[in-house]
Amino acid sequence: MARILYTLCGTDVTRPFSPHCWKAVMALAHKGLEFEERPMPFTAIPELEEGFSKIVPILCDGEERVADSFAIARYLEEDYPDRPSLFMGPGGEAMARFVEGWSQTQIHPAVTAIAILKIHDMLDEKDQAYFRKTREAALGRTLEEAAAGADEARAAFPARLQPIRHMLRAQPFLGGDAPLFADYIVFGALQWLRIVAGPVPFLPDDPVSDWFERLLDANDAIGRSVTAA
Amino acid sequence: MARILYTLCGTDVTRPFSPHCWKAVMALAHKGLEFEERPMPFTAIPELEEGFSKIVPILCDGEERVADSFAIARYLEEDYPDRPSLFMGPGGEAMARFVEGWSQTQIHPAVTAIAILKIHDMLDEKDQAYFRKTREAALGRTLEEAAAGADEARAAFPARLQPIRHMLRAQPFLGGDAPLFADYIVFGALQWLRIVAGPVPFLPDDPVSDWFERLLDANDAIGRSVTAA
Repeated sequence: MARILYTLCGTDVTRPFSPHCWKAVMALAHKGLEFEERPMPFTAIPELEEGFSKIVPILCDGEERVADSFAIARYLEEDYPDRPSLFMGPGGEAMARFVEGWSQTQIHPAVTAIAILKIHDMLDEKDQAYFRKTREAALGRTLEEAAAGADEARAAFPARLQPIRHMLRAQPFLGGDAPLFADYIVFGALQWLRIVAGPVPFLPDDPVSDWFERLLDANDAIGRSVTAA
Repeated sequence: MARILYTLCGTDVTRPFSPHCWKAVMALAHKGLEFEERPMPFTAIPELEEGFSKIVPILCDGEERVADSFAIARYLEEDYPDRPSLFMGPGGEAMARFVEGWSQTQIHPAVTAIAILKIHDMLDEKDQAYFRKTREAALGRTLEEAAAGADEARAAFPARLQPIRHMLRAQPFLGGDAPLFADYIVFGALQWLRIVAGPVPFLPDDPVSDWFERLLDANDAIGRSVTAA
């Protein structure tokens, strides 16, 4: 197949878990484009495609190579304009950057606090050493110290979703009546948590839970191809 | 003039301060539409326009009446399609609802904690009684109890702006290269704080401060028509 998406996995190649890779998977599925997913360990990524990128997702689409989930979404929108839109106009593309800013500064740190040791434990020995070294340098503490806040982070998690909950009073998706790339940005973060650390903590009768279930069902339920931990 | 915008003020009619009303002011200015602003005390609002709405902003545009800032933005976008767009497409309109959700659940409570007693003190006696009664019922505590967290809320305020800071790495406005209604949603919250409680607390050399200054300059600097407290 001419379209390949490199993603991230631990020792179990059937459980790719990276939030950014899930954004790209959903974007490709949204466009109705077939692709072969190739999940890779962290330490194999710099060798892929002649050292094209240090990070995944990497999309190889015929002769084209694109790394970074947002860049992939923009590439797909531009190169496949006749397929369903991921942004629904320039305003939607611009504001998806704010959704990305919110997700990465408010949701990703919480998922990290909940799941960092579980991620470590999914990796092979070589990746574990790489993961520990890079994450401990970034966090300024050991993985075990970071994981000490996991229960607290889990309890506080539903409150972090308040902006989505408020938005859902007006419409069923960030994209309005149907999901757009902005939905997949937040979905990716919650899917990461679901695959690595089990069901996402929601409020009782939480409309955000309903929204997440709708996204698990979207695009031929590709999000359900990996079960919750 | 046929176009009237009712907004909110305290005893000083020259210092309208409502975040929602500032969103509507910026939306009208963005569209290049002239209007007469009529700032009103809280307790006068239910009498306006034959009891049309319990809340401001209320826009009267010839025969049309619209209340609620988002509804006003949608009305302007639909009725003045040849003027500069407030949403840049349906994706931008939908995602502005998420920006609203973020602003109202993450920024408004912080502004309330910082400024609630200062707002009270700006009002006339009748409005003070109304404000105390409704806000204490909503908050479940006295205004003085709520204001006890003001210093802490002020110190924590710059961190609340982290999603904007992250987004500004990619582009100068939520709307992309130029401001859209989503920018005005967040601007309204910060302008409310600025008018009621003085300069917005930012980080040193904060790109969010630069963004806010750009919005104070936007639309013929209409945001600077009221000085910081």
